[in-house]
Amino acid sequence: MKTVVLFSGGLDSTTVLAMVIARGDEVFPLTIVYGQRHEVEVRKAALTLERYRLSHRAKTIALDLSFLRSSSLTNHTLVVTDGSSAAIPNTYVPARNLLFLALAAAYAEDIGASRIAIGVNAVDYSGYPDCRPEFVEAFNRLLAVGTKRGVESGDIAVEAPLLSLTKGEIIARGLALGVDYSLTHSCYAPDEEGRACGRCDSCRLRLKGFAEAGIADPVRYIERWTA
Amino acid sequence: MKTVVLFSGGLDSTTVLAMVIARGDEVFPLTIVYGQRHEVEVRKAALTLERYRLSHRAKTIALDLSFLRSSSLTNHTLVVTDGSSAAIPNTYVPARNLLFLALAAAYAEDIGASRIAIGVNAVDYSGYPDCRPEFVEAFNRLLAVGTKRGVESGDIAVEAPLLSLTKGEIIARGLALGVDYSLTHSCYAPDEEGRACGRCDSCRLRLKGFAEAGIADPVRYIERWTA
Repeated sequence: MKTVVLFSGGLDSTTVLAMVIARGDEVFPLTIVYGQRHEVEVRKAALTLERYRLSHRAKTIALDLSFLRSSSLTNHTLVVTDGSSAAIPNTYVPARNLLFLALAAAYAEDIGASRIAIGVNAVDYSGYPDCRPEFVEAFNRLLAVGTKRGVESGDIAVEAPLLSLTKGEIIARGLALGVDYSLTHSCYAPDEEGRACGRCDSCRLRLKGFAEAGIADPVRYIERWTA
Repeated sequence: MKTVVLFSGGLDSTTVLAMVIARGDEVFPLTIVYGQRHEVEVRKAALTLERYRLSHRAKTIALDLSFLRSSSLTNHTLVVTDGSSAAIPNTYVPARNLLFLALAAAYAEDIGASRIAIGVNAVDYSGYPDCRPEFVEAFNRLLAVGTKRGVESGDIAVEAPLLSLTKGEIIARGLALGVDYSLTHSCYAPDEEGRACGRCDSCRLRLKGFAEAGIADPVRYIERWTA
């Protein structure tokens, strides 16, 4: 089975990549460079792709989202929200996962892939609406009625294997599959050396996950948040 | 009300633009340059925007879809299907309207727009699945559950005012609103001077529409198909 994997180089999508490889799928990693503040994740993504000998089959698509002024990930004049608030942080990029899945769907349809795997998670997450099961279900409905492949064979769908796992469970799953988390990047506001800030929503979720999993996070931090 | 209008410069989206302007909305035209074979449509789009004094508020997004090899619109080594067959022609671009609506949704959410208008039509159309009411409905469900604006206020939706009109009715509607169809472009395989081929699915639908509306199409053709 051909599977397109949305692969950012982050903790979640690296785990998904390992899961799909382990299942024996023919994997097509897809990385989207959108002008994200933390573009270091894309450079680290390349290291994981090399490790899995998938560089030759990986695809990178450039989609400049800098016109989106409301998100601190695409508007670099905004300050990344401290992740301690309960509200949706300003790292929310409008319709980002919708855009990513739409690109993945176009690619999947073009190469005849049956599955699109994405590392969204609705347990230890930032409250982004496009990480929830309702979103994945609605997108699958759209694939079924709105693509040629969906209408003709029904053989195209998104799978989100991390949807209902805690961050600790995701890390445990990845470690069991041999994921090297030192090659992953999660922080939205890294410094020039690529060190994680330890304070944004993404860092907090990651650190919580490693604490739960009972192991040390191998990446470098400027400071480590503790609850 | 702020409305983002997906505006290609074609017959349908120009009619939609006129309809939304006539309603008195604050209009934000959005044009996507995706490496389409008939990029002349984008140059003509600029003329219509000038006519409506909307150039200053119009946005163009570049999204290179040349990696999609199965469509004759994005893979210029393929020959555009003659539009006389009943099958979906090779001008189908995988998930194109999904991608366009996803970009429009991101933009709408970012600027606080309530509506996204698109000129899809499921009567005189090429059989593309992403032009049908089921697709529009499924996309609206996705906006409701998968965007911050949808979840928080529910005030974001796609409207497709041409969905159930014939091409002749669309043209009649546009003419009543003063649309200048000489500034629109529909052909997928124009020659170097921008003249329409008269044979592709888009030309055939357009010519059928003008015949129905009982007026001559003001654009230039290499040859005009007749039923």
